Formats: sequence, C-alpha cells, structure tokens
Amino acid sequence: MGKSILVTGGARSGKSAIAERLTLQFGGPVAYIATAQAWDDEMAERIAEHQARRGPEWRTVNAPLDVVGALWRTDGVPRLLDCLTMWLSNLIHDERDWRAEGAALVAALAEQSAPVVLVTNEVGGGIVPENALAREFRDAAGVLNQMVAAQCDTLYLAVAGHPLKVKPNDDFAI
Amino acid sequence: MGKSILVTGGARSGKSAIAERLTLQFGGPVAYIATAQAWDDEMAERIAEHQARRGPEWRTVNAPLDVVGALWRTDGVPRLLDCLTMWLSNLIHDERDWRAEGAALVAALAEQSAPVVLVTNEVGGGIVPENALAREFRDAAGVLNQMVAAQCDTLYLAVAGHPLKVKPNDDFAI
Amino acid sequence: MGKSILVTGGARSGKSAIAERLTLQFGGPVAYIATAQAWDDEMAERIAEHQARRGPEWRTVNAPLDVVGALWRTDGVPRLLDCLTMWLSNLIHDERDWRAEGAALVAALAEQSAPVVLVTNEVGGGIVPENALAREFRDAAGVLNQMVAAQCDTLYLAVAGHPLKVKPNDDFAI
Repeated sequence: MGKSILVTGGARSGKSAIAERLTLQFGGPVAYIATAQAWDDEMAERIAEHQARRGPEWRTVNAPLDVVGALWRTDGVPRLLDCLTMWLSNLIHDERDWRAEGAALVAALAEQSAPVVLVTNEVGGGIVPENALAREFRDAAGVLNQMVAAQCDTLYLAVAGHPLKVKPNDDFAI
Repeated sequence: MGKSILVTGGARSGKSAIAERLTLQFGGPVAYIATAQAWDDEMAERIAEHQARRGPEWRTVNAPLDVVGALWRTDGVPRLLDCLTMWLSNLIHDERDWRAEGAALVAALAEQSAPVVLVTNEVGGGIVPENALAREFRDAAGVLNQMVAAQCDTLYLAVAGHPLKVKPNDDFAI
Repeated sequence: MGKSILVTGGARSGKSAIAERLTLQFGGPVAYIATAQAWDDEMAERIAEHQARRGPEWRTVNAPLDVVGALWRTDGVPRLLDCLTMWLSNLIHDERDWRAEGAALVAALAEQSAPVVLVTNEVGGGIVPENALAREFRDAAGVLNQMVAAQCDTLYLAVAGHPLKVKPNDDFAI
C-alpha cells in the first residue's frame, strides 16, 4: 500500500514547497492534483507562482471536485494533492455533502498503490469569526483535516518554511 | 500531588477528544467540568455532540464561573475541565476579574490530589482583529493560557486530531 | 559567525519572554532593537509593559525601519530584534520595498559576529481575511518569516509560554 503524508500549516507557512519536496523524494515523474480554480486575478497569480516553481517532472491534473477520480487515474506515480481546504470550499460552493466526499477520499487513500502527499490549511487558530458561514467553514475544515490525518501515515505542521513532525510521534502512546 | 495536563489547539483540532483519552488513561470513573452554556442553538448542538461522545463513566459538573469550587468538589477522581477559553468568556461577560480568577485556578491546581486535564484554545494565530474587544479577549486568552501552562506538568498542542508535546521538552533547557 | 535564532508564535504566546531568556543566555550586556512605535495608547501600554520586564543589562535601540543599521551598530553584544511583523508593518506604511529590505536583513544576519535573536508573529492561522489589505499583509508576513527562518540556525514556535524547537530537526532530512 502506498504511503500517505499530510502537510498542514497556516497561510504562507511553506506547506506547498515542503509537500513538493516530499513528493519528489519518492522519485519522478510525479503528478500534481490541483483543486484551485482561477476565480480572480489574486488566485490566478498564486496558481501561476506555484506552477512556475514546479519543474517539468510534474504533470498537472485539475480536480476542483473529483479528487477521488484523480487519485485513481494517477495511481502509478507519486501524487501531490494541493489542497484540501480549496477542495472543501469547492464542494460547499457546489452544494455537495463534504462529509461523504471526505469519507470517500479517506477510503480511496487507504487503497492507493503509489504514495500520496496532501496539503491542507490551519484555519482555526484565530479568534472566533463573527460571520456564521466563516465559523461553519472553519469547523468543516478542522473536521476534514482530522478525518484525513487519521488515515495518513505521517502528519507535518509547517512553521515558517520548516516541517514539524506531529505523527507518528513517540511522545504520546494513548 | 495530582498531575495536571493542558491541551491547547485551534478550533476543531481534536483537543477535547485528546483530553478525554488523557483523562480516561488515569482510570474511571471520571468527572467532566463543563464551562459551556447553551446560549444559542449552535452552542447547544456543540454541547450535545460532546456529551454524546462521552460514555457512562463520565459525571458532568456544570461550572460556567466557579471552576475552582468544581475542582475541589471533584478531587477524588480524574477531572477534565473543558474549556478555559469559554470560562474566560463567561468571567468577562459577568464582569469578574479574570486575572485574579486565573491566579486562584493556578493555586487550586497546585493543591489537587487527583489528576486534572484542562482544554484551552489557540486564538492568537490570525491577523490582528480590527475590533478592540476582540483584541482584548485574544490577549486575555493568551495570558491565561500562559498562566495555566506554567503550572501544568504537561502541555500538548493539538494538530489535526494529534497531540504534539510542548512541555516537558528536552529541546530547551533555559 | 554569530548564531541567529528566530522565535515565532501567535499573539500573547510568550514569544518575547522566551526570546529575552535566549538572548541573556549568551551573557550581558545585551541590546534590544525595538521596531514598535507608540502610535496609540494600546501600543504605548504594551511597549511600557515589555520595558518594565527587561532589566538594567538591556540597552534599547529604536529602529522602526533601519533594523539592518541597528544590527551593525550593536554587533559587539547579543541582540534581540523585536519584532519582524511590526517592522514589516512600518516598511509597508512607509511604502518601502519589504522584499528588498527583507533580503538585506537576511544578508546582514549572515555576517554578524555577535548572536541575534529575532521575534516574529504567526498571523496565517485563522480563516482567510475578507479585507484584501489584510490578506496581503498576512502573505507578506509569512514570506518574510520564511526568508528569515531559512537563514537562522534555530527556529522555535512559542506555545502558551513554552518553546517548541522546529529547526534544526532530526525528523526531516530532505
């Protein structure tokens, strides 16, 4: 069974660069499963910046919603799925059942042959948002992160460009 | 003297579930000191969800303000106090002196016979809130967390459902 | 070459107190390079609180913009630069090129003879701010943190008053 690794962290904490290095560690060619859509100039700029950093060994697969299908179609090479939070946002925008979709992702991860590295965001470390929709999104993102982290072999927290290993962890045996 | 453990983390980082496992590790029966009050449906739903997860070995003690009294009344069994941030919010709402109350909690923790596990929230990891009251609450929550963490034997940061040990820590001896 | 240490963390996570202890570990006298300016009462109060905690072995150098000059002028003693996030805010307010200034800081750090401890803030752990300027600031702060952390020998994340070592880290070799 392929190894699965989750990299979480705040905005601009270096998550994607760490995840790219982790994916390439398994050897190329590799696939990049992109959930981001260029809704506006700010997003288009960020996507272009990420693409420019990746070299020719990367094949990009766009999967704003169907990340499970994208995982199965690329299950011959190491994959980087970037990112869960954007996927969640797309699912909610499209009125899908994100809990069911998250469970389907977890089930697919358990059955992949090739390694999968996933990126997600920490969004629950600020004060409680005044906006109810923002609170719901924050809660959903945290629950989805826990679902996927429970399935992954390894979990890193990115801090200022550096990964901190959270799982597996000898510190805590219960 | 009873061991004291603080579990901090962002919203939906799995803090409460980790703290429940840590409390049960000391053996049941156990007590749950609840600071949350069901002000609205969203809060009532969250309280019900937490209660449904806990089994019959848990006895619930409601203590929106008097957590020190609740600690003394339950000092024969392991206790889970969930959570400091809600307690702080209740203290401020009730116009109490949270620094004095925090100091009283720290003094009580030092004298308990049975173990105490406490849950709190990381609320200072976002951008500076525009609202002055939100900034004050964020600062108070951080100061209270430091006061309690200084007294506790063990401190964990919850990340995507997994605990990361912060204290004690061999990395740092000063 | 002097050792450089970066301490990051959320608001009221105990970053400054940890950084002060780290600086004094190198032996006094020591210098405090202050980037904060007392724009309002809230800020003036926070500056006064920090000053009251520091003892007579500290010499304060105010450097809201020219932290590179301040580093060179104090390169005979251990220095604490507090903090990068406020410096970034000052640079943007003064319409400076923060990326160029950040690169100049990194270059200066590489050439200092005496140790430098730097404090910065985690601001990217909440939900995406609705305000575009806040999003830009959050992104800039994260990028600057990564630039400086890449140069530093040691990186700590402050959690509830306790430091967690992120770099160097045996957990991750790629």
